Amino acid sequence: MNALAATNRNFKLAARLLGLDSKLEKSLLIPFREIKVECTIPKDDGTLASFVGFRVQHDNARGPMKGGIRYHPEVDPDEVNALAQLMTWKTAVANIPYGGAKGGIGCNPGDLSFSELERLTRVFTQKIHDLIGVHTDVPAPDMGTNPQTMAWILDEYSKFHGYSPAVVTGKPIDLGGSLGRDAATGRGVLFATEALLKEYGKGIAGQRIVVQGFGNVGSWAAQLLSEQGGKIVAVSDITGAIKNSSGIDITSLLNHVKESRGVKGFSGGDSIDPNSILLEDCDILIPAALGGVINRDNAKDIKAKFIIEAANHPTDPEADEVSGIRLEHKIRAAGSIIK
Amino acid sequence: MNALAATNRNFKLAARLLGLDSKLEKSLLIPFREIKVECTIPKDDGTLASFVGFRVQHDNARGPMKGGIRYHPEVDPDEVNALAQLMTWKTAVANIPYGGAKGGIGCNPGDLSFSELERLTRVFTQKIHDLIGVHTDVPAPDMGTNPQTMAWILDEYSKFHGYSPAVVTGKPIDLGGSLGRDAATGRGVLFATEALLKEYGKGIAGQRIVVQGFGNVGSWAAQLLSEQGGKIVAVSDITGAIKNSSGIDITSLLNHVKESRGVKGFSGGDSIDPNSILLEDCDILIPAALGGVINRDNAKDIKAKFIIEAANHPTDPEADEVSGIRLEHKIRAAGSIIK
Amino acid sequence: MNALAATNRNFKLAARLLGLDSKLEKSLLIPFREIKVECTIPKDDGTLASFVGFRVQHDNARGPMKGGIRYHPEVDPDEVNALAQLMTWKTAVANIPYGGAKGGIGCNPGDLSFSELERLTRVFTQKIHDLIGVHTDVPAPDMGTNPQTMAWILDEYSKFHGYSPAVVTGKPIDLGGSLGRDAATGRGVLFATEALLKEYGKGIAGQRIVVQGFGNVGSWAAQLLSEQGGKIVAVSDITGAIKNSSGIDITSLLNHVKESRGVKGFSGGDSIDPNSILLEDCDILIPAALGGVINRDNAKDIKAKFIIEAANHPTDPEADEVSGIRLEHKIRAAGSIIK
Amino acid sequence: MNALAATNRNFKLAARLLGLDSKLEKSLLIPFREIKVECTIPKDDGTLASFVGFRVQHDNARGPMKGGIRYHPEVDPDEVNALAQLMTWKTAVANIPYGGAKGGIGCNPGDLSFSELERLTRVFTQKIHDLIGVHTDVPAPDMGTNPQTMAWILDEYSKFHGYSPAVVTGKPIDLGGSLGRDAATGRGVLFATEALLKEYGKGIAGQRIVVQGFGNVGSWAAQLLSEQGGKIVAVSDITGAIKNSSGIDITSLLNHVKESRGVKGFSGGDSIDPNSILLEDCDILIPAALGGVINRDNAKDIKAKFIIEAANHPTDPEADEVSGIRLEHKIRAAGSIIK
Amino acid sequence: MNALAATNRNFKLAARLLGLDSKLEKSLLIPFREIKVECTIPKDDGTLASFVGFRVQHDNARGPMKGGIRYHPEVDPDEVNALAQLMTWKTAVANIPYGGAKGGIGCNPGDLSFSELERLTRVFTQKIHDLIGVHTDVPAPDMGTNPQTMAWILDEYSKFHGYSPAVVTGKPIDLGGSLGRDAATGRGVLFATEALLKEYGKGIAGQRIVVQGFGNVGSWAAQLLSEQGGKIVAVSDITGAIKNSSGIDITSLLNHVKESRGVKGFSGGDSIDPNSILLEDCDILIPAALGGVINRDNAKDIKAKFIIEAANHPTDPEADEVSGIRLEHKIRAAGSIIK
Amino acid sequence: MNALAATNRNFKLAARLLGLDSKLEKSLLIPFREIKVECTIPKDDGTLASFVGFRVQHDNARGPMKGGIRYHPEVDPDEVNALAQLMTWKTAVANIPYGGAKGGIGCNPGDLSFSELERLTRVFTQKIHDLIGVHTDVPAPDMGTNPQTMAWILDEYSKFHGYSPAVVTGKPIDLGGSLGRDAATGRGVLFATEALLKEYGKGIAGQRIVVQGFGNVGSWAAQLLSEQGGKIVAVSDITGAIKNSSGIDITSLLNHVKESRGVKGFSGGDSIDPNSILLEDCDILIPAALGGVINRDNAKDIKAKFIIEAANHPTDPEADEVSGIRLEHKIRAAGSIIK
Repeated sequence: MNALAATNRNFKLAARLLGLDSKLEKSLLIPFREIKVECTIPKDDGTLASFVGFRVQHDNARGPMKGGIRYHPEVDPDEVNALAQLMTWKTAVANIPYGGAKGGIGCNPGDLSFSELERLTRVFTQKIHDLIGVHTDVPAPDMGTNPQTMAWILDEYSKFHGYSPAVVTGKPIDLGGSLGRDAATGRGVLFATEALLKEYGKGIAGQRIVVQGFGNVGSWAAQLLSEQGGKIVAVSDITGAIKNSSGIDITSLLNHVKESRGVKGFSGGDSIDPNSILLEDCDILIPAALGGVINRDNAKDIKAKFIIEAANHPTDPEADEVSGIRLEHKIRAAGSIIK
Repeated sequence: MNALAATNRNFKLAARLLGLDSKLEKSLLIPFREIKVECTIPKDDGTLASFVGFRVQHDNARGPMKGGIRYHPEVDPDEVNALAQLMTWKTAVANIPYGGAKGGIGCNPGDLSFSELERLTRVFTQKIHDLIGVHTDVPAPDMGTNPQTMAWILDEYSKFHGYSPAVVTGKPIDLGGSLGRDAATGRGVLFATEALLKEYGKGIAGQRIVVQGFGNVGSWAAQLLSEQGGKIVAVSDITGAIKNSSGIDITSLLNHVKESRGVKGFSGGDSIDPNSILLEDCDILIPAALGGVINRDNAKDIKAKFIIEAANHPTDPEADEVSGIRLEHKIRAAGSIIK
Repeated sequence: MNALAATNRNFKLAARLLGLDSKLEKSLLIPFREIKVECTIPKDDGTLASFVGFRVQHDNARGPMKGGIRYHPEVDPDEVNALAQLMTWKTAVANIPYGGAKGGIGCNPGDLSFSELERLTRVFTQKIHDLIGVHTDVPAPDMGTNPQTMAWILDEYSKFHGYSPAVVTGKPIDLGGSLGRDAATGRGVLFATEALLKEYGKGIAGQRIVVQGFGNVGSWAAQLLSEQGGKIVAVSDITGAIKNSSGIDITSLLNHVKESRGVKGFSGGDSIDPNSILLEDCDILIPAALGGVINRDNAKDIKAKFIIEAANHPTDPEADEVSGIRLEHKIRAAGSIIK
Repeated sequence: MNALAATNRNFKLAARLLGLDSKLEKSLLIPFREIKVECTIPKDDGTLASFVGFRVQHDNARGPMKGGIRYHPEVDPDEVNALAQLMTWKTAVANIPYGGAKGGIGCNPGDLSFSELERLTRVFTQKIHDLIGVHTDVPAPDMGTNPQTMAWILDEYSKFHGYSPAVVTGKPIDLGGSLGRDAATGRGVLFATEALLKEYGKGIAGQRIVVQGFGNVGSWAAQLLSEQGGKIVAVSDITGAIKNSSGIDITSLLNHVKESRGVKGFSGGDSIDPNSILLEDCDILIPAALGGVINRDNAKDIKAKFIIEAANHPTDPEADEVSGIRLEHKIRAAGSIIK
Repeated sequence: MNALAATNRNFKLAARLLGLDSKLEKSLLIPFREIKVECTIPKDDGTLASFVGFRVQHDNARGPMKGGIRYHPEVDPDEVNALAQLMTWKTAVANIPYGGAKGGIGCNPGDLSFSELERLTRVFTQKIHDLIGVHTDVPAPDMGTNPQTMAWILDEYSKFHGYSPAVVTGKPIDLGGSLGRDAATGRGVLFATEALLKEYGKGIAGQRIVVQGFGNVGSWAAQLLSEQGGKIVAVSDITGAIKNSSGIDITSLLNHVKESRGVKGFSGGDSIDPNSILLEDCDILIPAALGGVINRDNAKDIKAKFIIEAANHPTDPEADEVSGIRLEHKIRAAGSIIK
Repeated sequence: MNALAATNRNFKLAARLLGLDSKLEKSLLIPFREIKVECTIPKDDGTLASFVGFRVQHDNARGPMKGGIRYHPEVDPDEVNALAQLMTWKTAVANIPYGGAKGGIGCNPGDLSFSELERLTRVFTQKIHDLIGVHTDVPAPDMGTNPQTMAWILDEYSKFHGYSPAVVTGKPIDLGGSLGRDAATGRGVLFATEALLKEYGKGIAGQRIVVQGFGNVGSWAAQLLSEQGGKIVAVSDITGAIKNSSGIDITSLLNHVKESRGVKGFSGGDSIDPNSILLEDCDILIPAALGGVINRDNAKDIKAKFIIEAANHPTDPEADEVSGIRLEHKIRAAGSIIK
């Protein structure tokens, strides 16, 4: 089941629970607008290269649309559609006056020079500037893009519409970006964990926590949970996995990762097999890496009492339905709502 | 082979003959912009209905983009892409300063009342008005739309941009539409036929002509060819087929069709099997109905010396390649270039 | 003396007191701009109907103009002019940075279906959208219009100018409307009453109050004054009048009115003749129904010590001048200034 | 019967003859838009003065609206409405793609200095610039305005919308004004006369013609009719009247008028009583001065065989109905259609 | 060394200290945009007069540009360039999100009537309105201009862009001007003095202060320093100089100046030679009049321990380098940063 | 005497002859608007480079301004001002509805790569796009720019204002450039020569003509004059000079120049000293190279009967006044007016 099918299935389940009129349900599934544009730039070697940029604007009934811009070689239109739709539901559930959107360019940012990325971003902005805006649709960084990308969009957009710092979020602090944005998704994991435990009359202090994935989201989540008294007993990333039943010192681990570009080799714990980290004994399991890691095969072996979904769809939608996974233990982390 | 695959194949053949740079070839295949919008209207019964409207703008290097808007329940995105691309090549080959586009709405115009069609057209125009325009992209009628549709677009567009009669072609004569537009595609068939015969040192007078399809294109073509001395020896439509080796009186036939809504029953000729009309003995065969009617199976049995393609792709692209069809006899009728 | 004549007379009196230059006085009486537009819509039965919409923009020297939009069959241009002018004086006296305007459509909203009202409102908005705006002129609901009307204006305006929730006030809370707007005019009556009493060294607690009219303004005023300790001794509406010298229980009365659509039949008081309610013995009389109810004939028989004018012009301007009405007791309630 | 009542009566008569739907008839009588604006300027003496400017835009169904701008102390709103409506019918009957409008400012241009007229015109333009335009509404000179006025409008409008010479007609030749505009209304009288006579198998040569009024219209009409062989036997203006049964030499008369500012004292004819000029014996009578000069009292004494109405409504509408005036002899001169 | 040369020299010194890339240094010295426009107005006597208006926009990398508009007969382009550049550094050093600009008109405001100044300001605004704006460049009053000038700019600008009070600062309080702006530059002198003394472990109380120049800046500085316990021992303006070793009563002096239009004749101190005021014995010297007053000749004779530069460049740049002036005692007063 | 001084002197002489009002004369000398902008681009090596671009718009009273854009390292502001002014006089004298402008960028186009030139041109266009336009100011190629430069301006401008081919002249034919533009200046020389000779009752046939300079202007002039029967007896360029009393075969010479990049070595004539070509015996001398070549020193030795000035100012203005040059023989060639 792909991302769009899963998202539509979930929406339809929700629509049934809400008793939504079927015409309204159908209308909510059709995106407000989808745009696909050709972006041609001169490469540094003088030859021309053409890329396809796109933006799916799902719904603006509650306010300006909001969502990231990805640069990735394999852009899956269905996934982008799904993510735009999810942005609509996220902003609505969080009750902030925004709608949902998502977009990107089909390119491999690693294959493009800094100059080429700038040119590509500016051309893409020229092509969509009339369809985004402070009151219309406000992009943000996503996979393969960053504050520098937002700065280029801001500058190019401003050539057409005057100085408009509010046209993107996730821009550099010096250009008016928000303090705290870096930690925002990880902090959302903290809030979700606190909220879930509270329903069970518990607190974070003393909980034994496993974090799969130690990128921006996982490392901030580990740090913030640790500050609240949580005991991070195991952590993994693509380089390896670390376990320390007495609790890993996150500050030391962060320094180690900064130097070694991975958790592998960290002296404050024992090395374990990354493939089995989801099955480690703990109170709370936080999958913060890829989607679909919890599935029919391993669901029954998970020992955690609570699962906090920090990645997009870490639990295979089919697993939700058919396996013995304890659904009552799971809450979907909203993460950085204002992405 | 679908419409887009066939169009791309033909373009690539042409690119190879022209020695086009491969990057330029790739860039020319990517459309300039594609837009998909949700159009929600109140139906006459008070319920809401949502439709998907779209516009593919293929290329504007040579001037404003040009192309029809279709209302049809089964909109095939690939076909629309192909038709937008063909508009680019048509305007370029005819050397007029326009580019190519195509669009439409996924709806069954027969299921909608006059009021609903007006509301749908106005909502669609509201959604795309910033992306079309006199100097940008100029729509025209196509399958399921007509001068009335253009009048609604013109009126709605003018609310946003001021009185702009040039934003659509194919509008009613009273609103500034062009005289002669009705006959334009059929007249193109006449011009193509004249041009082809001229290469063989021949003229239209005395040629025995078979016309498959007697709609707007076929009936105008028959009338105009007949005025130039051509002898229309057989004609078919969905009601039947008529043959008269001495030449059918087209004026009488047009009167008959106006009354009986089809060629069937016309007294000025003998009724024949419509399925075999392509194989009738004649000098010139004009398929003016559906695509793909000439294929591997029947190509070798065609007796006409010349084929004038008035429909879109009447000859199956595969037939072009593998069968014994006499390609040197065929010329593609440009038809109503300024569609 | 009609509404405009009375308003002009009052303005001229004020101008004389302020020593205004006569050219400035004349200039202030001429509205900044008046617009009259034809609004043609298809009715539900398919026929066309034409209505006249208008907007009087009186003055913008102090900021964007502000004022309601009425739907009423008998639109009196003089009255609208007067009300636009009064908006200028109201915003100026309250020292908020706005000017004054007023408008409407000559129609009977009761004769139009929900769909027809929507179409009429959208067409009217299309006709005036360039003349209103966040920084220019901000409409609000008035007689015959409501938050739904404002939502249609907002949506239609936004098609032309981008998402602009600030272009109307009085919109639904979900679209960004202000909390408390419903009670605002009645609360203004409370504030005016408090201010007046304070000048006489008194408070609301214990005052015996009569409220003529129990619509939005009168019922909120009664409720709020009652919450401050006021004793509502008599209340009337078009269905009848109620008296209770010990004080009417307003919460019970509101429940009764919700069920019975009028005060008539309320068990918490005695039924009296509505025609004589103005003459009831009380401390404070609040006419909150029609204009001109206090006039030469009845002014001398009023027993209230204070009159709070909650309706527009409840005191006949001529009565002001000639009768023995105790002007020192009267203060004009500003009501919902940001209408 | 005032101008508006007469215009409406005539329109309703026409509507009945055309079998117009009653809703459409009602809709055509409601102007598209009416605007009234306050224009405040500093006078040369430093004091402020406020004037009311207005524009009635009657109908734009056939193209941009067209009509004059008057500066006159007694602006009669009904008359302006009537004239705007007449512009719609005039452009429609002449089958040119324009609608109808009319406007003006309530001021006495004779009381204003050149500078004050410039300031007033520029302020008026600032107030209506968004509602007129090349594709919307194109003003022209009228009573109390002239090419200089149009030049100011053009210049002020261009500050807001870029260089737009087409926004007014009747501008100075050097700014792109049309050659021949000066004579256009008089030439219209010639064309109308020719057309009327042709129906009776006659030509202009030898006709004995009386012209009441020798302003721009009357003098050009006399000159052009004379050039076609017409014999101008009597002419009047406010200074007096001249008669010459052998035909007045129009070139000499024009020179006399240029020097003496009136026909009085012209030696090439006998002085007669201006009050009886309408009753002079002649073939063609051309009233080119005021409205209503032909009425119940004098209609029966008119000796002319044909009346050409060069002024607006020279024949009292009531006279049309009740007196013995020979209607078949009368044709309304279209005059300067592109006013 | 003129103003631009001095400014460039200082910038280059700073660039060297910051280790700026030489290309960036060069780029920062080139203004973003310079505009020069012809402004032609009718004078009160009816003749035309042409003036040159200009605006130098130095840099907008940190936000909208900000800077005064001067009306002065001898506009020195180099000085304006220098002042625009200084605005960039001032807003950057104060870390507020603005850039730098400066402009003016070459005219003698004393030779123009109130009406002529209004017309000139409005024409200038018409010529530059597309290049300034809330998010682009925000003018302010400067030499020869005042809040009235800003009100005219605001009003004229708003005709083109809608009501835009934020397009100028320094406008009248009633139009939204900022409270405290009048005293802002003088208050900046107070802050600078406090900051400088603090570095030396001192406070303002008891300091003996000399103020050269008693205009807007000097008089506010004297008043505010006096309120903080400073002892103003000498003050000068163009009418004369006053000395009082026990401290001048600033409130009395302000009253005297209001009546006598100068410090001359003030009874609360002794009259001294204005030419030697810089050399008076004191702790703090505040030159608040012209530039270049401290130079090679008098620098060594200055007895003050601290110099607060309230005027622009009161110290000759060459004196900075070659004389014995105690640079460590000097701090440049930021003055009214948001000029 | 520099270019601006000479231009101003000539204008003042003309103003005196026309009896121009002195205020109008002064106003005509002040340019309408001058703009100077910073253009920063990334060079191919990744470093930044800043250039100063400018545009002088002299006068638009007669229509949109018109004038070239130069890329040259030493931009002399006075010269550009002079050339902008000359454009105003040229369009006025030729009585076409345009004004005058001129602009450029201070850069050495020879030092910039094709990509850098494109980036620089696009940045410059971004900086001035709001100040040029079809109805405002229409650039053209000039020294250091060409049709490719115009294509870049057109494309960049169209991003902001929609497809606008009319915003530049001198664009490539394929983008709508004018046929014949290449030869236009040379053809102007032909017309000027014909007009001058006609005044003397002569024709071109048989005239002996010397052309100094064989670039675009000189070679086209030679070719066109030769086609009309003129005998080109001597030609020079920077490579050398050729003489042939029987007349040079221009077609052969053009082929030689195409191959050898100069006239040097042409076999169809004798080589002579280029320095003395102005003094060759002939009927008509056409200096088509630099300015100031005819001066006090050589004026008296010129043997030609007529001088046609094809270059800008080939005759030193001072020489005009003081030397014995036969002014009656000279006429200034208008050249390519619509530059």
